[in-house]
Amino acid sequence: VGARLTDSAAFSHLWGTAEVRALFDDRGRYQSWLGILAALAQAQADAAIIPAEAAKAIEAAADVDRLDLELVATETRRTSHSTLGFITALRAMLPPEAAEHVYYGATVQDLTDTWTVLVLRSVGEIAWRDLHAIEDLLVGLAKAHRDTVMAGRTHGQPGAPVTFGLKAASWADEVRRHIERLAEGRSRWLVGQLGGAVGTLGFFGDAGPALRAGFCARLGLGDPLVPWLTSRDRLADFSLLLAMITGTLARIGNEVFELQRPEIGEVREGTGPSTVGSITMPHKRNPEASEHLDTLARLTRANAAVLLEGMAGIHERDGRAWKAEWAAFPEVCLLASSALAMAADLLAGLEVDGAAMAANVAAQGGYLSSEEVLAAVAARDGKHRAQEQLQAVLAEGRREGRSLAAAVTAAGVLDEVAVAAIVAAPSLSTARSAVDAILERARRAREDEAARWS
Amino acid sequence: VGARLTDSAAFSHLWGTAEVRALFDDRGRYQSWLGILAALAQAQADAAIIPAEAAKAIEAAADVDRLDLELVATETRRTSHSTLGFITALRAMLPPEAAEHVYYGATVQDLTDTWTVLVLRSVGEIAWRDLHAIEDLLVGLAKAHRDTVMAGRTHGQPGAPVTFGLKAASWADEVRRHIERLAEGRSRWLVGQLGGAVGTLGFFGDAGPALRAGFCARLGLGDPLVPWLTSRDRLADFSLLLAMITGTLARIGNEVFELQRPEIGEVREGTGPSTVGSITMPHKRNPEASEHLDTLARLTRANAAVLLEGMAGIHERDGRAWKAEWAAFPEVCLLASSALAMAADLLAGLEVDGAAMAANVAAQGGYLSSEEVLAAVAARDGKHRAQEQLQAVLAEGRREGRSLAAAVTAAGVLDEVAVAAIVAAPSLSTARSAVDAILERARRAREDEAARWS
Amino acid sequence: VGARLTDSAAFSHLWGTAEVRALFDDRGRYQSWLGILAALAQAQADAAIIPAEAAKAIEAAADVDRLDLELVATETRRTSHSTLGFITALRAMLPPEAAEHVYYGATVQDLTDTWTVLVLRSVGEIAWRDLHAIEDLLVGLAKAHRDTVMAGRTHGQPGAPVTFGLKAASWADEVRRHIERLAEGRSRWLVGQLGGAVGTLGFFGDAGPALRAGFCARLGLGDPLVPWLTSRDRLADFSLLLAMITGTLARIGNEVFELQRPEIGEVREGTGPSTVGSITMPHKRNPEASEHLDTLARLTRANAAVLLEGMAGIHERDGRAWKAEWAAFPEVCLLASSALAMAADLLAGLEVDGAAMAANVAAQGGYLSSEEVLAAVAARDGKHRAQEQLQAVLAEGRREGRSLAAAVTAAGVLDEVAVAAIVAAPSLSTARSAVDAILERARRAREDEAARWS
Amino acid sequence: VGARLTDSAAFSHLWGTAEVRALFDDRGRYQSWLGILAALAQAQADAAIIPAEAAKAIEAAADVDRLDLELVATETRRTSHSTLGFITALRAMLPPEAAEHVYYGATVQDLTDTWTVLVLRSVGEIAWRDLHAIEDLLVGLAKAHRDTVMAGRTHGQPGAPVTFGLKAASWADEVRRHIERLAEGRSRWLVGQLGGAVGTLGFFGDAGPALRAGFCARLGLGDPLVPWLTSRDRLADFSLLLAMITGTLARIGNEVFELQRPEIGEVREGTGPSTVGSITMPHKRNPEASEHLDTLARLTRANAAVLLEGMAGIHERDGRAWKAEWAAFPEVCLLASSALAMAADLLAGLEVDGAAMAANVAAQGGYLSSEEVLAAVAARDGKHRAQEQLQAVLAEGRREGRSLAAAVTAAGVLDEVAVAAIVAAPSLSTARSAVDAILERARRAREDEAARWS
Repeated sequence: VGARLTDSAAFSHLWGTAEVRALFDDRGRYQSWLGILAALAQAQADAAIIPAEAAKAIEAAADVDRLDLELVATETRRTSHSTLGFITALRAMLPPEAAEHVYYGATVQDLTDTWTVLVLRSVGEIAWRDLHAIEDLLVGLAKAHRDTVMAGRTHGQPGAPVTFGLKAASWADEVRRHIERLAEGRSRWLVGQLGGAVGTLGFFGDAGPALRAGFCARLGLGDPLVPWLTSRDRLADFSLLLAMITGTLARIGNEVFELQRPEIGEVREGTGPSTVGSITMPHKRNPEASEHLDTLARLTRANAAVLLEGMAGIHERDGRAWKAEWAAFPEVCLLASSALAMAADLLAGLEVDGAAMAANVAAQGGYLSSEEVLAAVAARDGKHRAQEQLQAVLAEGRREGRSLAAAVTAAGVLDEVAVAAIVAAPSLSTARSAVDAILERARRAREDEAARWS
Repeated sequence: VGARLTDSAAFSHLWGTAEVRALFDDRGRYQSWLGILAALAQAQADAAIIPAEAAKAIEAAADVDRLDLELVATETRRTSHSTLGFITALRAMLPPEAAEHVYYGATVQDLTDTWTVLVLRSVGEIAWRDLHAIEDLLVGLAKAHRDTVMAGRTHGQPGAPVTFGLKAASWADEVRRHIERLAEGRSRWLVGQLGGAVGTLGFFGDAGPALRAGFCARLGLGDPLVPWLTSRDRLADFSLLLAMITGTLARIGNEVFELQRPEIGEVREGTGPSTVGSITMPHKRNPEASEHLDTLARLTRANAAVLLEGMAGIHERDGRAWKAEWAAFPEVCLLASSALAMAADLLAGLEVDGAAMAANVAAQGGYLSSEEVLAAVAARDGKHRAQEQLQAVLAEGRREGRSLAAAVTAAGVLDEVAVAAIVAAPSLSTARSAVDAILERARRAREDEAARWS
Repeated sequence: VGARLTDSAAFSHLWGTAEVRALFDDRGRYQSWLGILAALAQAQADAAIIPAEAAKAIEAAADVDRLDLELVATETRRTSHSTLGFITALRAMLPPEAAEHVYYGATVQDLTDTWTVLVLRSVGEIAWRDLHAIEDLLVGLAKAHRDTVMAGRTHGQPGAPVTFGLKAASWADEVRRHIERLAEGRSRWLVGQLGGAVGTLGFFGDAGPALRAGFCARLGLGDPLVPWLTSRDRLADFSLLLAMITGTLARIGNEVFELQRPEIGEVREGTGPSTVGSITMPHKRNPEASEHLDTLARLTRANAAVLLEGMAGIHERDGRAWKAEWAAFPEVCLLASSALAMAADLLAGLEVDGAAMAANVAAQGGYLSSEEVLAAVAARDGKHRAQEQLQAVLAEGRREGRSLAAAVTAAGVLDEVAVAAIVAAPSLSTARSAVDAILERARRAREDEAARWS
Repeated sequence: VGARLTDSAAFSHLWGTAEVRALFDDRGRYQSWLGILAALAQAQADAAIIPAEAAKAIEAAADVDRLDLELVATETRRTSHSTLGFITALRAMLPPEAAEHVYYGATVQDLTDTWTVLVLRSVGEIAWRDLHAIEDLLVGLAKAHRDTVMAGRTHGQPGAPVTFGLKAASWADEVRRHIERLAEGRSRWLVGQLGGAVGTLGFFGDAGPALRAGFCARLGLGDPLVPWLTSRDRLADFSLLLAMITGTLARIGNEVFELQRPEIGEVREGTGPSTVGSITMPHKRNPEASEHLDTLARLTRANAAVLLEGMAGIHERDGRAWKAEWAAFPEVCLLASSALAMAADLLAGLEVDGAAMAANVAAQGGYLSSEEVLAAVAARDGKHRAQEQLQAVLAEGRREGRSLAAAVTAAGVLDEVAVAAIVAAPSLSTARSAVDAILERARRAREDEAARWS
């Protein structure tokens, strides 16, 4: 029984989707292992290395429902060997002749690395699907809020007007780059592993290269040409990409968290009817998903860093780095899958309060137009002169609680009409053009893009 | 069912001991939660906040075997609330009157933080026990090999003689510092949490401080005086200490890994009769535990870093940092527990091959005595002059395959008798005194030290 | 000339104080190295290993102003040896006889490790001083704002009233634990290093242990008894403590950053008269120092993690870990020193706006009293019944824009008088007792505590 | 004056090449800043936003040698503003009219982000060049040692024969993937930044998008279309790629470190004539560069992680993440540049000792052929039967010090002729085909590949 809260019945959904959990749990893993050994046997039968009947029998037995999981566990612990328990249980399901041809000439890492890549393929597929769904949602928000004016904030301080559409466009832009990265990495990542003891397939004499090619082809994977037993950049790269993706989703989550503060109140997470925010404070509505996106990003990048560290391994197998992947790689995939699913939900239910945004802009007394006032004065008086003057005028205006218009006109910097025009109609052409560009880019990208990743 | 390989029946023992797993799994966690709520109810009854009968009923019900775990899970998911499912299931076991007094005025973090500290106490206890066991083994090795001469290596190159006892003493010295850190942190770490909504126990009016004191006392924990809802240095500190401990154990593991290379062959992990080293290479004997200590250290420090990052939280509760602890803190404890157990086993079974050590020293052709030859020449000719001369003489000697003695005498630097004396009896007084000091320090420390940590 | 922006004339003050920079720059480092070699010579003269005149000459020459820094650099690069350039330059300042007794029997790590500890001592001293100053400021804030009511926030949402004094008390509480950690680590950290080639002081025969003791004593450091060439827990431990300290300071910074948002406006960083917030938005006032505290914490913990990783080194010297310390340890010290100085400044100038705090509480329409309303109803109706009822009543009240009092009285849950009493006088006894406890604890701690750390 | 050892005259070459240092030092940075402001002015003159004469004057003044660096520093510190000091000094060099049109409507981040990308372009160019040089060296080693048989090692234990060519091929394979990643990321990374206060270029009304396009074009950069003020995936991605590259180089370094142990002695770093290995042990030859590659990788990945963490920023500018980049990004580039240069040197001078490799294989008494013996017996007796039998036979053989041939023939498993044939001619077809494939792939890649990156 699991000792990790991340796997407990009550909490596991927060730390991995059911879909990805099924890839990594005992059943999923052993089913995939059986499939790999069946493919190996078939490829070996094709190359006349083992009898065709043995390969058929192995393929027929490749069903996790028939595997004695208890025996797997007991024998694994007894021998301290990573796959011997599994092989023993598999052999127990086979006629003696076929049993001798299971796992023929292969080593643990051939099995587990190939499995890792198969899982990577499934997780990449899920990320591909979810990133597209998230892009759609973001593009939709960008379009819907192309003209929804709100305070742009720098260093946490309202500075000048932006649109919510621009914010969504920036998120969509980042997500699109992740989709591109995913597309580009695919062929580099999706290769099988078959090397035997030290990568030379010494077991198979001259038949090695062709056998590896056949094995990989049967699984729909590329042939790596060179063993990658200690060449772990592929897994590090994919993991770091997932970590970057969770970084983007955490950026979205953090933004929602901040804008949902009631003192700001510009967006709100949707909530289901049965959600309970707080027991002790029955009035509260918390940005739970938004917060959790940041939590997931922290954990994902911590685990991805373990795979990056593992690149510096030695010799023809480095158990230190490789076994660390056994814990860290699934973690990265599980956490990222939750982040993707949760972000899609969050965005689908996001409530954007344009009126609150407008009110917050108004509450700043026109000061959000200071950049444009500066532009107007700069055109007349020179920029640095304008800046020094406004710096003083506006600081004083703020101190005395006047509006920007009052401050600027009192100081004789601009007349009332000019200021009013600036405050009334912030210049948002660039923001709008960014939204349009993102929409167009996403639209065009979709035309060329396959629905499925692999 | 668990999706983490680290929790699978076959592999979980490598990523957490059974003892620590039992603290974190659903049963362990819910049993502890029940105990905490019982203590809370008792403390509240003591303060006449709830009826004594209710407290008695809650205490009587505090048995995880009676808890409907299915209900806990379903309600947790339905409400998206971390403890409401648990409370619902607990209330279902109670008479209506008592049910109303469960979890009275407490909040999620009161329960989970207090639980975390109770687990920390158990893990600290285990670490205390295991570190002492490891210190004993190391002190034993230091004593047994006080005079076992071997090559000291710097930058991977044999440099000058040391003893294996010195190596063990250095490990023991480091372990002792961890024991001290553990002792010193104890009272800082072992405090309960009871703050209610925002840490002010507003639910309880003026009774708050005394209630918190009573609650903590009933659990054998200190009273924090101030809520620590976003003050997470205690957990970061403890986690970093466990990470440092795994760092020390990885140092030991890495040393064994290197010295076990057959080209060196100075130590060997013991192996059980049923261990299988390699399927494809039936002759092999791998330093499995040694390697794994490094793997565990990598993962432990990655997870501990998440707790360090979590210190920078905001306001009266920061879900981003806090929920990250839910995944990272158990991981740190589980991984470190495995490292401690595995290191103790490794050291208990370690085979030290003094003959191989001597042979490796001899194989260096006397060059390991270059520091002492330098000392002898330096005393006569001046140190820097001696050094420049020897640099040339020894480089040439090595290039031509001569022994140090041959090189030095041929160059007329020292006479045969003098060199032979140096090579025959390396100066190891300092090494021996280090061993003696460590032995004495460990002995004295034990006199003052309690057998149990908490 | 420096290539790091962190060392550029314009920006270096943000990434290290002048005081700590002077410890690490070329002059500071070489002066300290000269002092160490002088102490070594003196200890060797005491033990009749070198002539007393040589020691005197070396001590007399130990003045960085006389050192040819150009020669140091050229020879270091030419020989690829870390200290040979320095020694060459030192020898050039000495009479021939004394020159032969410089750096007698010592190795690079003896010099650099001892230097690192001397710097650690200075940095620890600075941290001790600054943490006490920060504690004073925090205790002052806690006292001054013991009764300043403000919204407590969880998950970014106002939840229930707290006091600003409680917030300051929680920071002070955490700072005090760092002071304790600093005190406890002192004797563990402050030890010299003298081991020669591989830690055995083979150069000195039986005189080794006494020489090391004498050398350490002359520098005011403890004798490690065992060489710690690859036993790096001390530096990791100290670095992680500095990282934890910056974590605490980042917590303060992040809080100020959030509370300084004009939509909240409860605190403000003080600003100097010449500070320019923004060129493009002349009205802005940014929480620069607050932000920077988080920046510094990120970088400090990244660098501290490198020292933690370095604990797993091998053999009698591990250049991989050790050289990484050369870059990471100074970085940790420099960054933390800036964080300490900046936090002290920030707190000294912090403007706390009690009126804004009160207004924000009021703006919540009484909902911040929901915990206490719950308590009142729970005492009458049972807690879980009360909670379910209030959950519905308050959600509806919020939806319809009513005050808590209106919602609760309309639903017949409590009468007007009772609600008004709760809202008017939040229960803050626990908050106040926390402030008092922290004040008292700090006061008592000071009675026993030395003004200086080392 | 620099406080970082990494920038000290004596040691800086180990922590950044002169070439990359020149990009980041004050002169390099200010020269680039001047060029950016000149390009901005030109683009603004093109768009009739500022007078053409002003643009010309600014361009003419864009010479760091004329800049008053002292003034820059003083004013930066006085105003606590990141670029105001620089602008003041620049304005001081200009006629009054032009001075008013400097930095017109731009903000700090426009300048510093664009600068960062320009530096990234230069560093990418260097990495492109150095990775190709390293690939050439590795391909050369793979070709030269296609048939150089050596022990393959797993878990640090010799297992079965490989070739040194295979090892080099695996490194080359990994390097090639980095080259591909570098090629693919180029157009994503190389974009300018021009957003003004909050990314909307409010200063410029409708002229914003065209101005940004013109500005980027003048610098040879792409137009980002959307401001990326808090969208930092590009810098994180590039930094993580550099960290991965240093990981690969550390893998090479660690391998050399291990194989250079005299007990193994299969490779050796070349050494220059003036290199001094050890002062205290005059006979030693240390793998300095190899070690340092691991050191550099540790520090690079720690700093790259800071950029990954920075992705989760908020609002329209997040100083916490952005300022952390100021320290971490240069560090990543400097460290990686040293690693690339050092790895190229190491590989160019690497001494490969085929005779020692053969001797080490021979010293294993034939046991490295166990995989092939297993294959032979498996073909006859079945694989699992063969394995169990050999497991026992070979363990006993090793225990009793017999050769594999003796053990196997004594047990009647295979006859002498068969065993001798296997031991004499290890099966290395797969290894050779891997070398050939890598050679061919590198050759073909070069045909399509530009000599320069950007």
